[in-house]
Amino acid sequence: MTLTNRSLVTIDDLSNGEVLALFSLADEMSAAMEEQHGLCRGKIMASLFFEPSTRTRLSFEAAMQRLGGSVITASDVGASSLAKGESIADTARIVGSYADIIVVRHPWEGAAKVVADFAGIPVINAGDGGHQHPTQTLCDLYTLQKERNTVKGLKIALWGDLKYGRTIHSLIFALARFGADILFCPSPGLEVPEHVINKLITEYGGEVERLETSGWEAKDNLFPLDAIYTTPSSPHQLAMMPGISLQAELKSGVDALYVTRPQKERFAAAEEGRELKGKYPVVDKKLLKGKAFRQTLVMHPLPRVDELAYEVDADPRSKYFEQAARGVPIRMALLATLLGAREIAVPEEDSPPKIEYPVYRRYLSPACPNPTCVSIQETETKYLKPEFKIVNTRPLTLRCVYCEHGFEPKYVASADWHEGKLDTKKYHSADSHWVRTIRPENLIVFDTEEAAQAHGFKPSHFTGGHH
Amino acid sequence: MTLTNRSLVTIDDLSNGEVLALFSLADEMSAAMEEQHGLCRGKIMASLFFEPSTRTRLSFEAAMQRLGGSVITASDVGASSLAKGESIADTARIVGSYADIIVVRHPWEGAAKVVADFAGIPVINAGDGGHQHPTQTLCDLYTLQKERNTVKGLKIALWGDLKYGRTIHSLIFALARFGADILFCPSPGLEVPEHVINKLITEYGGEVERLETSGWEAKDNLFPLDAIYTTPSSPHQLAMMPGISLQAELKSGVDALYVTRPQKERFAAAEEGRELKGKYPVVDKKLLKGKAFRQTLVMHPLPRVDELAYEVDADPRSKYFEQAARGVPIRMALLATLLGAREIAVPEEDSPPKIEYPVYRRYLSPACPNPTCVSIQETETKYLKPEFKIVNTRPLTLRCVYCEHGFEPKYVASADWHEGKLDTKKYHSADSHWVRTIRPENLIVFDTEEAAQAHGFKPSHFTGGHH
Amino acid sequence: MTLTNRSLVTIDDLSNGEVLALFSLADEMSAAMEEQHGLCRGKIMASLFFEPSTRTRLSFEAAMQRLGGSVITASDVGASSLAKGESIADTARIVGSYADIIVVRHPWEGAAKVVADFAGIPVINAGDGGHQHPTQTLCDLYTLQKERNTVKGLKIALWGDLKYGRTIHSLIFALARFGADILFCPSPGLEVPEHVINKLITEYGGEVERLETSGWEAKDNLFPLDAIYTTPSSPHQLAMMPGISLQAELKSGVDALYVTRPQKERFAAAEEGRELKGKYPVVDKKLLKGKAFRQTLVMHPLPRVDELAYEVDADPRSKYFEQAARGVPIRMALLATLLGAREIAVPEEDSPPKIEYPVYRRYLSPACPNPTCVSIQETETKYLKPEFKIVNTRPLTLRCVYCEHGFEPKYVASADWHEGKLDTKKYHSADSHWVRTIRPENLIVFDTEEAAQAHGFKPSHFTGGHH
Repeated sequence: MTLTNRSLVTIDDLSNGEVLALFSLADEMSAAMEEQHGLCRGKIMASLFFEPSTRTRLSFEAAMQRLGGSVITASDVGASSLAKGESIADTARIVGSYADIIVVRHPWEGAAKVVADFAGIPVINAGDGGHQHPTQTLCDLYTLQKERNTVKGLKIALWGDLKYGRTIHSLIFALARFGADILFCPSPGLEVPEHVINKLITEYGGEVERLETSGWEAKDNLFPLDAIYTTPSSPHQLAMMPGISLQAELKSGVDALYVTRPQKERFAAAEEGRELKGKYPVVDKKLLKGKAFRQTLVMHPLPRVDELAYEVDADPRSKYFEQAARGVPIRMALLATLLGAREIAVPEEDSPPKIEYPVYRRYLSPACPNPTCVSIQETETKYLKPEFKIVNTRPLTLRCVYCEHGFEPKYVASADWHEGKLDTKKYHSADSHWVRTIRPENLIVFDTEEAAQAHGFKPSHFTGGHH
Repeated sequence: MTLTNRSLVTIDDLSNGEVLALFSLADEMSAAMEEQHGLCRGKIMASLFFEPSTRTRLSFEAAMQRLGGSVITASDVGASSLAKGESIADTARIVGSYADIIVVRHPWEGAAKVVADFAGIPVINAGDGGHQHPTQTLCDLYTLQKERNTVKGLKIALWGDLKYGRTIHSLIFALARFGADILFCPSPGLEVPEHVINKLITEYGGEVERLETSGWEAKDNLFPLDAIYTTPSSPHQLAMMPGISLQAELKSGVDALYVTRPQKERFAAAEEGRELKGKYPVVDKKLLKGKAFRQTLVMHPLPRVDELAYEVDADPRSKYFEQAARGVPIRMALLATLLGAREIAVPEEDSPPKIEYPVYRRYLSPACPNPTCVSIQETETKYLKPEFKIVNTRPLTLRCVYCEHGFEPKYVASADWHEGKLDTKKYHSADSHWVRTIRPENLIVFDTEEAAQAHGFKPSHFTGGHH
Repeated sequence: MTLTNRSLVTIDDLSNGEVLALFSLADEMSAAMEEQHGLCRGKIMASLFFEPSTRTRLSFEAAMQRLGGSVITASDVGASSLAKGESIADTARIVGSYADIIVVRHPWEGAAKVVADFAGIPVINAGDGGHQHPTQTLCDLYTLQKERNTVKGLKIALWGDLKYGRTIHSLIFALARFGADILFCPSPGLEVPEHVINKLITEYGGEVERLETSGWEAKDNLFPLDAIYTTPSSPHQLAMMPGISLQAELKSGVDALYVTRPQKERFAAAEEGRELKGKYPVVDKKLLKGKAFRQTLVMHPLPRVDELAYEVDADPRSKYFEQAARGVPIRMALLATLLGAREIAVPEEDSPPKIEYPVYRRYLSPACPNPTCVSIQETETKYLKPEFKIVNTRPLTLRCVYCEHGFEPKYVASADWHEGKLDTKKYHSADSHWVRTIRPENLIVFDTEEAAQAHGFKPSHFTGGHH
């Protein structure tokens, strides 16, 4: 099995078997660090950081150098050629002709996919806006695997800013795929985005139950439990357990508490301000005295600010510094395999094949509604066309191939109906029964009736009631 | 033939034979990239970028690392010790004691020469203000050589911002020296500077004809042709072809179209603003459909903004990404030879010897009138004295040895005349016949009569008419 | 003798014998630079620069690469994760798990000690605020040693900004320890801080005589001599020579003139402004013509601004560029020994053992009064507790273990007296005779009577007169 010349843009780009094989390789490399030094001799990794980062960048660069490879770094890209208005695709093509592999961080969601599409060499996403940060997820899973021997069946509580934390989004999908149960414990107002929940249900099976948290009181120092995800492989199914509550869930203990900081740099203006500080739960010695946490691994992607007390550092349950340290062997294993310097053995039984959704890509396409999606930025629209996966038909849901945000267009038409027959160029409400009868390759969607009419379509009687 | 310990400040620092020998070495290195990895082991290249740059810096650093060498980088120099007011000479001396070779980019024209003068190790100019960028020129020539097997006799159209593009200035001189014809197609207001044209005529022979462009209409999508340079070796001489026109020139086809972006960061305030956007010609599919472009290589030093449409990327005539990629082997060849790790074989027949101009350097010297010349900056005047080459006597023209801007002083005197004879300390108009009789080592020039009188000189009767 | 796994935070972390052994190793390495390239192969040095620096950072990175090691660099740390509010301890722990050695520069005094305390790997201080810069001191001493064969008995004049120059503070202690005499020649208003003078007297023996400089006139181009330090080993003792003057001191000649620039970036607002420029003495040819300087080495830690004329560069007495160049072999020797790649032989007779002061560290502790001390910064107080050495009892003086600033608390109490006996919880004036009777482990100090009373202490009759 080879990973050579592949890219890692989202955690979905690796199968479960590949992830586990990387963990074995990371173990092997950790055990004999000095011996890895010739492995990538003569290879060059380009670090392209369009957003500042010390930890992640240095971790990748240390990993490449432990393998004997070289590094070229642009950590100040915001100030350099990009300031001259260059597109991501051009940067990717050029740096792709200098280096053997690219590690990229960018503030726009989907930017890493664009780099991977144009570079011509393997690309690793080191964080693209609020979208994904898959190597952080590998560190997280690797830590769980090392500490508990398996991820399957673990109960993981995610704590804090579940809205803007890209590490959280990558992690949720990975936990689901590996068969963990997830307790969502967001700071009020920073709940997991809908598109993440939707992808969780439609793609990984299992169930999500939402809990009422509005009247929550912070008794027993516990956090508000917002939702629970249980995997299909879980012994108890939520459907059979109405009225499930945090207390019930916690009885059996939490395997890991994954704490995150408020990602203030991504907050919308409304969320900023003084109120948050008071509301943001703090993990400290007192909280960890609870019965449910007796065996709990305390994890954090770091950097921390105030949400995780320093007094916890000396606690044997604290694993966040190990989690960070494990970034080096994990990234070594990843770099060595993508560069073709090492092969990995993937077990026969692997994750189920990914769902292949029909693609929506046409001239009339609406733009992705996510304001930080790479596909709608001025420098990128010169060459990128909107492209979506049709992930649902009831309600009709398109998911941007770049940022993976989903949205539900309001009106539809069919390319088949009107070809050559101008009088039948009609548009319909997206919630009419017509939607399911349109073949994906013929689907046309509109955000507004005005958009439909601007393209010469007339309302059908299935648009009524929307006026 | 050795290049060891030499510096590359302007493209004139390499003879034609040396350039071609570097191309052969670059070919050899491209063909066996992995084998070069031991060549510069233990050597250190210092990247000093006083202006942000991703592409050029990463290209140099990748080249050094492909050779097995190490790199120390200051890409944020603007914010560091320079902010403490250090001179370029001091930085050069100190970094020269750390590294084996320096690559420097700086916003001031002539800065690379200062670094080369003080570093004590080889220095490569990676762009000094609007002056030169000789390794970009090597990439450009190398691409022409690879695609057409020779530069001699090619017809190259330079397109866009010919005023501020330093890559353009280096390239013009190189093309002339290698015997190419040049069509100048500037965006109106961004014509090639006079001092470049003057150097082209006086130093490379050949002829420049200016064309009337004021009434130009952009019919046939063609650009306004501002001037044509034909080399001495060109089969037709312009003098024999009065009334030459773009249409005539284009009949035989253009070998390469060298597109540049507007260098907005160097624009004077007056040139900025909305008007430019509309006037700046765009190279797109439609333009390239013209007969003259059937066999034309499309080149660009990158980054591009809007002047070169993305739709052209897939066209087989587009060579700009190859042009960028070739930067690595070219810079490998250059680094390896300047560091003495490789020798090159230069053919017997080489470029004609450079003209040795008399030098003007004295206490009374006027300052260089170029406001971005390194020699007049506050931190540098503490140790740099103005120095000029006397490149012409009718009109009397001095060219700054740092930035290579030329200027014509208004008044002259002779050091010979007045030594010990105070009553004969007289100054004359620079356009009087006296100028040619003054021996260069005795020449004294003044910008104004006031300056002359302040130094105790009196007007002669050859200053009349200027009052 | 091994330095393996030790850190260099202040110059006191190395004994005289260790310093001299490093110089021998630096000599050896200079003489066979190419042979050192395999010494640190596979090792990684992390450069963490929280303040911009070109010279020092590049010098360290060149040194590591001359040893064949690799470098990971964060030179823009101000803009990156630190901006997310991360503590120095967290950064240190994480980078400590990536690299084998850390070089750190930080604007807060004492920051390098925090990094060393938490990193788990050797740490080298490359400058922490106005505190210390021990590797610069090694370069300075190494230059003296190379040029004069010994530091003992030399007479060194320190010139310029003796207040904010951290290189000056490290150097003073080192010169005292090695038995040099020091002439302090500050720019008026930029005298050596009291805490430095105090440490010099109490810890290194010898004597300091202050001279009257208020009526100083700059005749003979000489600088104002503010104070003289003579080592205990010095042949003449100041006590025996009342009325010592600059002229007398200079008769025998100055061995080195150590010039420094005004550290304007650290000036308090009051010191800035136009007046300084005029007052700051300039070292030029004229000054160096004085008899006293006939054999004087001119040194400067660089960068220079206006305080050292360029005309001096060509003078054979000028050693500042050699001083900078020697930074590479010195840092190579240091890195190789701390990383355990080389051992050094330390002679039997070494510097006298350091004084072990009692430590003051308790809940009631006052904060360090130095506003740029690391221990009082908002991000660091979450885990750092104030800690002081009790370096004197008359007057009672505490010295911060982080920034080494000393201060004299006003009130004291004893933990012994009041334990269980509330009516005897009394506080006293710090200048009462009680202070010396309190055992260090029982000492409690207060800045104000209010603070004492807030903790339940009542005034004793030894607080009288302070009201």
